[in-house]
Amino acid sequence: MKDLRNRAEEEMTIVEQHQFNGGIIETPSPRPRIQAHFHSTVSVQKLRRFNILIFIFRLVSFCFSLAAAIFMLANSRASKSPSWVDFDTFRFVAIANSIVGVYSLFQVVASLWDILRNSTLFPEIVQIWFDFGHDQAFGYMVLSANSAGTALARSLHDTDTCNDNNAFCMQSDISIALGFIGFLFLAFSALLSGFRVVCYLLKGSRFHL
Amino acid sequence: MKDLRNRAEEEMTIVEQHQFNGGIIETPSPRPRIQAHFHSTVSVQKLRRFNILIFIFRLVSFCFSLAAAIFMLANSRASKSPSWVDFDTFRFVAIANSIVGVYSLFQVVASLWDILRNSTLFPEIVQIWFDFGHDQAFGYMVLSANSAGTALARSLHDTDTCNDNNAFCMQSDISIALGFIGFLFLAFSALLSGFRVVCYLLKGSRFHL
Repeated sequence: MKDLRNRAEEEMTIVEQHQFNGGIIETPSPRPRIQAHFHSTVSVQKLRRFNILIFIFRLVSFCFSLAAAIFMLANSRASKSPSWVDFDTFRFVAIANSIVGVYSLFQVVASLWDILRNSTLFPEIVQIWFDFGHDQAFGYMVLSANSAGTALARSLHDTDTCNDNNAFCMQSDISIALGFIGFLFLAFSALLSGFRVVCYLLKGSRFHL
Repeated sequence: MKDLRNRAEEEMTIVEQHQFNGGIIETPSPRPRIQAHFHSTVSVQKLRRFNILIFIFRLVSFCFSLAAAIFMLANSRASKSPSWVDFDTFRFVAIANSIVGVYSLFQVVASLWDILRNSTLFPEIVQIWFDFGHDQAFGYMVLSANSAGTALARSLHDTDTCNDNNAFCMQSDISIALGFIGFLFLAFSALLSGFRVVCYLLKGSRFHL
């Protein structure tokens, strides 16, 4: 016990001595877990790396979703060519990727804010549940859209549409492939934001200062 | 502190007094969290309800996935009728739903075992991560399959295939709809098994005796 306390004193940078000695069971204050956590230099570094990883995943997800949406939305150049608007499924692909693009852009800003200011955009508990919930829901949505898009693109390849307008089918394929990569990074982000939810429940903090 | 301990003493049924007094910070034993949790009659009832809920979700998921797989696998009655084997996407639907059906059956057995014997089939930590990982992965897989199936079914409706063989298209539609319901309950199960992972990390136990 003595050892533990000594080590804690060496590592502690911010938290008051009194609060840490209190421990979890000893002080039944309203939010004892929040007061009880403390931060070492090592954990600050880990945290920084974790936040940068989230930022990178969000950024990659944003880039690919945006590219997928643009590729699909711009997929009707020639007047004789079919348009993405003619196909319900391609409309779903375009809209789902657009939504994920906008959401990822928002998350890029939020995670930049987190890195630079060490605080969340919304109140912490709202932010972590918002992130996790939307990552999961939008992940399912964009996967569903891209899978449906794949099936339609495959069946179009057997029809005259693709023989007459190969560029249209090629561009749809590229859009869907980009969308899948966007989904992949959104799913990684969902894992990390799920991890943050667990951290919040464990420590009363999103693995953060 | 006095109040807290009195309440704990009233509720405690199994755990030794010594271990609880020890608390989390006071006893740096190898797995203090596991020893520190205790079980009241209320929590045993809650736990029972939680396990029964998981069991029901697994059972419903099993029924619908099995029905979806059977509907798709049996979808080639007449000799002139097209078969599900002719379409890659329908093969994906049949296989994905079969896999989820088999997995859900296994999970039905596992959760029955959990309810009746108060222990997991595999070691606890393996079981909870196995459940959560497979729920997530198979959830994505079956959603992807059913979305692709929907897109193919929709595009088939515009072709001669559905005009000549309406029964084939109808049966595909039903199979995919059943698959989506199976996915829905698998996603609910994923939420609950995710909650168990959090419980395990929080308390050193899967919300369980």
